[in-house]
Amino acid sequence: MVSGNELEKSAMEIFSDERYDVIVVGGGHAGAEAAAAAARMGARTLLITMSLETIGRMSCNPAIGGIGKGHLVREIDALGGIMGRMADQTGIQFRMLNRSKGPAVWGPRAQCDRKRYAEAVRHELESIPNLWMRADTVTEVLVEDRRVKGVRTQLGKTFYAPCVILTNGTFLNGVIHVGERQLGGGRMGERAATGLTACLERLGFESGRLKTGTPPRIDGRTIDYSRLQEQPGDSEPLPFSYMTDRLPDRQLSCWLTYTTPEVHAILRTGFDRSPMFTGRIKGRGPRYCPSIEDKIERFAERDRHPIFLEPEGWDTYEVYVNGFSTSLPEEVQVAALRKIPGLERVHVLRPGYAIEYDYFPPYQIRYSLETKYVEGLFFAGQINGTTGYEEAAAQGLMAGINAVQKLRGAEPVVLRRSEAYIGVLIDDLVAKGTDEPYRMFTSRAEHRILLRQDNADLRLTELGYRLGLATRERYERMLKKKEAIARTRRALEETTVRPEQVNGYLERVGTSPIDRPERLVRLALRPQVNLRDLLEATGLREQVVVPAPGMEPVEMLVEIELKYEGYMDRERELVEKMRELEDWRIPPDFDYEAVETISKEAREKLSKIRPENLGQASRISGVRPADISVLMVLLRRYRRPQAA
Amino acid sequence: MVSGNELEKSAMEIFSDERYDVIVVGGGHAGAEAAAAAARMGARTLLITMSLETIGRMSCNPAIGGIGKGHLVREIDALGGIMGRMADQTGIQFRMLNRSKGPAVWGPRAQCDRKRYAEAVRHELESIPNLWMRADTVTEVLVEDRRVKGVRTQLGKTFYAPCVILTNGTFLNGVIHVGERQLGGGRMGERAATGLTACLERLGFESGRLKTGTPPRIDGRTIDYSRLQEQPGDSEPLPFSYMTDRLPDRQLSCWLTYTTPEVHAILRTGFDRSPMFTGRIKGRGPRYCPSIEDKIERFAERDRHPIFLEPEGWDTYEVYVNGFSTSLPEEVQVAALRKIPGLERVHVLRPGYAIEYDYFPPYQIRYSLETKYVEGLFFAGQINGTTGYEEAAAQGLMAGINAVQKLRGAEPVVLRRSEAYIGVLIDDLVAKGTDEPYRMFTSRAEHRILLRQDNADLRLTELGYRLGLATRERYERMLKKKEAIARTRRALEETTVRPEQVNGYLERVGTSPIDRPERLVRLALRPQVNLRDLLEATGLREQVVVPAPGMEPVEMLVEIELKYEGYMDRERELVEKMRELEDWRIPPDFDYEAVETISKEAREKLSKIRPENLGQASRISGVRPADISVLMVLLRRYRRPQAA
Ligand SMILES: Cc1cc2nc3c(=O)[nH]c(=O)nc-3n(C[C@H](O)[C@H](O)[C@H](O)COP(=O)(O)OP(=O)(O)OC[C@H]3O[C@@H](n4cnc5c(N)ncnc54)[C@H](O)[C@@H]3O)c2cc1C
Ligand SMILES: Cc1cc2nc3c(=O)[nH]c(=O)nc-3n(C[C@H](O)[C@H](O)[C@H](O)COP(=O)(O)OP(=O)(O)OC[C@H]3O[C@@H](n4cnc5c(N)ncnc54)[C@H](O)[C@@H]3O)c2cc1C
Repeated sequence: MVSGNELEKSAMEIFSDERYDVIVVGGGHAGAEAAAAAARMGARTLLITMSLETIGRMSCNPAIGGIGKGHLVREIDALGGIMGRMADQTGIQFRMLNRSKGPAVWGPRAQCDRKRYAEAVRHELESIPNLWMRADTVTEVLVEDRRVKGVRTQLGKTFYAPCVILTNGTFLNGVIHVGERQLGGGRMGERAATGLTACLERLGFESGRLKTGTPPRIDGRTIDYSRLQEQPGDSEPLPFSYMTDRLPDRQLSCWLTYTTPEVHAILRTGFDRSPMFTGRIKGRGPRYCPSIEDKIERFAERDRHPIFLEPEGWDTYEVYVNGFSTSLPEEVQVAALRKIPGLERVHVLRPGYAIEYDYFPPYQIRYSLETKYVEGLFFAGQINGTTGYEEAAAQGLMAGINAVQKLRGAEPVVLRRSEAYIGVLIDDLVAKGTDEPYRMFTSRAEHRILLRQDNADLRLTELGYRLGLATRERYERMLKKKEAIARTRRALEETTVRPEQVNGYLERVGTSPIDRPERLVRLALRPQVNLRDLLEATGLREQVVVPAPGMEPVEMLVEIELKYEGYMDRERELVEKMRELEDWRIPPDFDYEAVETISKEAREKLSKIRPENLGQASRISGVRPADISVLMVLLRRYRRPQAA
Repeated sequence: MVSGNELEKSAMEIFSDERYDVIVVGGGHAGAEAAAAAARMGARTLLITMSLETIGRMSCNPAIGGIGKGHLVREIDALGGIMGRMADQTGIQFRMLNRSKGPAVWGPRAQCDRKRYAEAVRHELESIPNLWMRADTVTEVLVEDRRVKGVRTQLGKTFYAPCVILTNGTFLNGVIHVGERQLGGGRMGERAATGLTACLERLGFESGRLKTGTPPRIDGRTIDYSRLQEQPGDSEPLPFSYMTDRLPDRQLSCWLTYTTPEVHAILRTGFDRSPMFTGRIKGRGPRYCPSIEDKIERFAERDRHPIFLEPEGWDTYEVYVNGFSTSLPEEVQVAALRKIPGLERVHVLRPGYAIEYDYFPPYQIRYSLETKYVEGLFFAGQINGTTGYEEAAAQGLMAGINAVQKLRGAEPVVLRRSEAYIGVLIDDLVAKGTDEPYRMFTSRAEHRILLRQDNADLRLTELGYRLGLATRERYERMLKKKEAIARTRRALEETTVRPEQVNGYLERVGTSPIDRPERLVRLALRPQVNLRDLLEATGLREQVVVPAPGMEPVEMLVEIELKYEGYMDRERELVEKMRELEDWRIPPDFDYEAVETISKEAREKLSKIRPENLGQASRISGVRPADISVLMVLLRRYRRPQAA
């Protein structure tokens, strides 16, 4: 599928093991998606990662998805990425979070078997013909005339490619902290990657320092489950992937307990030796995954915090203590844990710890994830300042796609904020930058009514298919689903029910009965009515619902569409308006300093971030609508012609 | 099962996570056996290892067993160890090597799925109630008055136990070499362990430096299998474990190819940059697992060496290039590989490399594997100068057993050279020391006629059971098998065949026909006769053979016994004679320097190694029979009273 000069050149040398179209550095969540996408789109791709044994390893909690993050996974899947399928294959518990709220913010989440998840990723990557692997550590990026040429490794090899994607995660000059102890490492038990930051700095990049933390892992044999609340999975679990037709028959439960004031008091005794509070850790931590010490400090009024005990897999006693991320001295961790109901006798397999690492503030990348300073060099994942597997995977996927687009000489694929959470994520990074680990939330997506987890395929699979990433099978499933929704909807519009068929149900759910035949669609629009139950009660399900591929009931999809239609139409209008601003491109060398009629802050921010268009400029904090109006005048001639 | 003071004390503090009966450092093959054995025998055991993810990892070839090594695995299994069962569960190919030779030297070997093997070990360890794990790196051994007290870790924790077993493998100050590149590490992609060697040296131990190497791992998609010879597994595969009743239905093949003079010529071009030949590597390498550069140097007359391509698992394309261990510069490795038929287009996932590491010459340990200088401190595995998973596992098992024996106040378990390969291994180490990596061969066992792989359970399971290590089920299977052999044998003695029943078969195998009825046992003794075929031919199998638990056909076991009986009796007499020397104990402080009538070399060696008895003394190279006679006179009063 790839075309263009670069590719022809490399095709001639296809049996040289040193020339590739795309080199991906790092086999974490970003790297796996990037490598898979680039290779599936036809690029001869080399994945270089420190150890083949750690490909796809989850550094922290053994879970994929959640609120906002679940949307990302479904979008990755819709485009033809791997994360969703891997999670479905290896999930041990599936839950749709936020079910009590509107479907726009439902968040699919799965606990996964940590070992199996990584194995599944490795296996998936091995199944891709154009993808090659190499266990090694990249120490240098080779650049000539501000164009990337390849990479050099610790073992002394040089590999060449016109596109290089860096996905180094938490490994760049990683330092692990537990209480007053510090050790170099990219994750506990794994080496850090040194050399690369300095190399990038020499190329003109600015690096920063962030930190994140992880809770202890404990021995499940020492948990008193009788003192905990069981949290079973959904009785009708739904998958991440639009390709999944079946999930495991069995699920494992998680378990809920709470900290107590005594736990907090014990934790406080360690604050004077906490690397965070003593200032030994310089990097900023993730605001939304705070450590337990952060939580009791910031929310001093709360006398308890929930702790979820999550099994690490089908056949291990290792348990993850979700909610108890900490880098306090280990004695303090253990003493505090032992005051949590159910953990009185707990044995710790590994203490919690914090890790500091280098990242590259993302004002240095473009919407394509290509860096601004070195052509062909892309950054994706934690290296751009995000936190979370899903955020990393989403970026990896887009970097993989855009590396190949570049090789093809095609336009980069940039998803709009109104098209995908992935678009929101990348726009937030590029337009706003981040100086603390960034994670996704539904609240970040102003158009979230449009960006539901249930319609990611309808939004994105066609694009994935056109790119050569989503398979034909996936594309056809999407079309079938679309058709099933449309036909079911028509059937709802065309089918009427008689009062005696339906009034029992209507009364039961507390809405007024009907006194003459009524079209199903009218009833379905009532907020109290659940379409599935309605169809069940009237016995019309078979007759009305057209089955579709995938595990989501079509009546659920149709119901969401029906009930949200009004909102969605309004939202689309809004999007149209906003979109106009995106059409005002800004030349890369535009001289903001010369525009004295905009605010000083706007001048500074705009000069640093260098937005690609007025839409992006308008979302930069500190840039006011008045500034935008000034720029509109100045940039009139850069306005992109309206699409037909 | 454990008793004694130490244990009572620790039982009182059983919920403290810092006090254990036994601490095992390292979760490789030695550490896994040591921890499993100690815990199964009732000791509260802590396994501290750098990463829980690497427990049971095979550093080099994904295979267990082989000639001599297979005996060790069966003995480990017979005693109640884990290696045999793990290999059976995860084997992808099973072969009995040396089948064309006498059954004393048959060597069972299995290719295993590397990932699954490690998972099975982890899972097995998790199933043992008394066993606790901890991911951490031990940096210090705590000693008071020459007694071990516990260990201190990199994360700053102290753990206490009266017995500590060190099984650090190749990790102590490990340095990896590829061509002119060097990097610290315990295995590629894993950190080295620093601090411990210096700590042990401060305690008076002498350390040395050894090296070993591993071949490249390659991408199976780039192998041209049409140019290779297939090496399928045995059509009737036999397991390692006496507990295994079933092996996988399917096996994977290995593939054979050869180096060529051109390959050798290319390899030679790298010799001037080889860390081995330039002297950068100081440590001695294993004579019997030479690198490919060693082989072409030492056997310059050979124009080819076999190369076995071994799959790494059921569902990976990673392939192990057995026979091509090397630390030459990577370009040279790749260029040479590409001249090997079938590998013309090979892609290397990871180059071969050599590793140098610290070991502790084993004259510093006793037969129990306890060190001579620090009470309660045991060494097992590669740290004692051996090479190989099986050698490591055997020592780990014995160290685990003897740590618990010590806690019980019981005599250490020391297997004699005539009882087990494990006895040969430990005696060789302790009595002879080693200054190059030691591996097992059948030729090292002078009594190998007695020490067959088929009778390890008959030799050792009772002991394992008495120790509280082998399960009752295992013990009963052994008894049943013993009985089935005896009864089958009796039936062979009692059953006669008529000429017309058997002469067809006898003629077919080229031995003289009979002319009157003959007892089956007489025919079975003929060298040309295969008992199984004989019974098949006469239709007497059902009537004669008493079935036994396990997968080995009883008629095979009986046949071996029958045919070897004469040799075995003679061997046993010899053993008896030799054993007498073992009864002359030598006091630990015996002053050899004062014995002027023995040779200078004997005085020196004996003073250094400090053998525990005259049997051991007699096996030290440089100690002559005349020296032994002198010592016999001097040591008369230390002679152990003859057992009743
Ligand atoms: C201790 C810890 C706690 C965390 N806590 C949370 C949390 O609470 N919430 C949350 O959402 N996320 C958390 N995360 C973050 C989450 O793990 C990451 O966001 C996610 O894994 C990032 O994916 P990635 O692909 O960018 O990088 P990673 O998953 O870190 O993968 C990086 C990969 O690159 C390889 N690599 C690195 N450098 C090189 C090199 N030079 N050459 C070759 N290979 C290289 C590594 O071996 C690794 O395979 C935590 C991470 C850690 C380590
Ligand atoms: C590159 C290479 C090539 C080899 N080639 C061959 C060969 O050709 N033939 C052959 O027979 N054998 C070979 N071997 C040897 C074989 O792998 C070892 O003999 C065997 O693994 C030794 O087992 P072990 O249990 O003693 O140590 P290892 O398997 O090395 O395990 C040591 C364990 O201890 C842990 N550890 C180490 N230090 C610490 C510490 N301070 N604190 C906590 N944990 C620690 C490690 O994490 C690891 O889990 C090779 C090994 C290597 C590395």
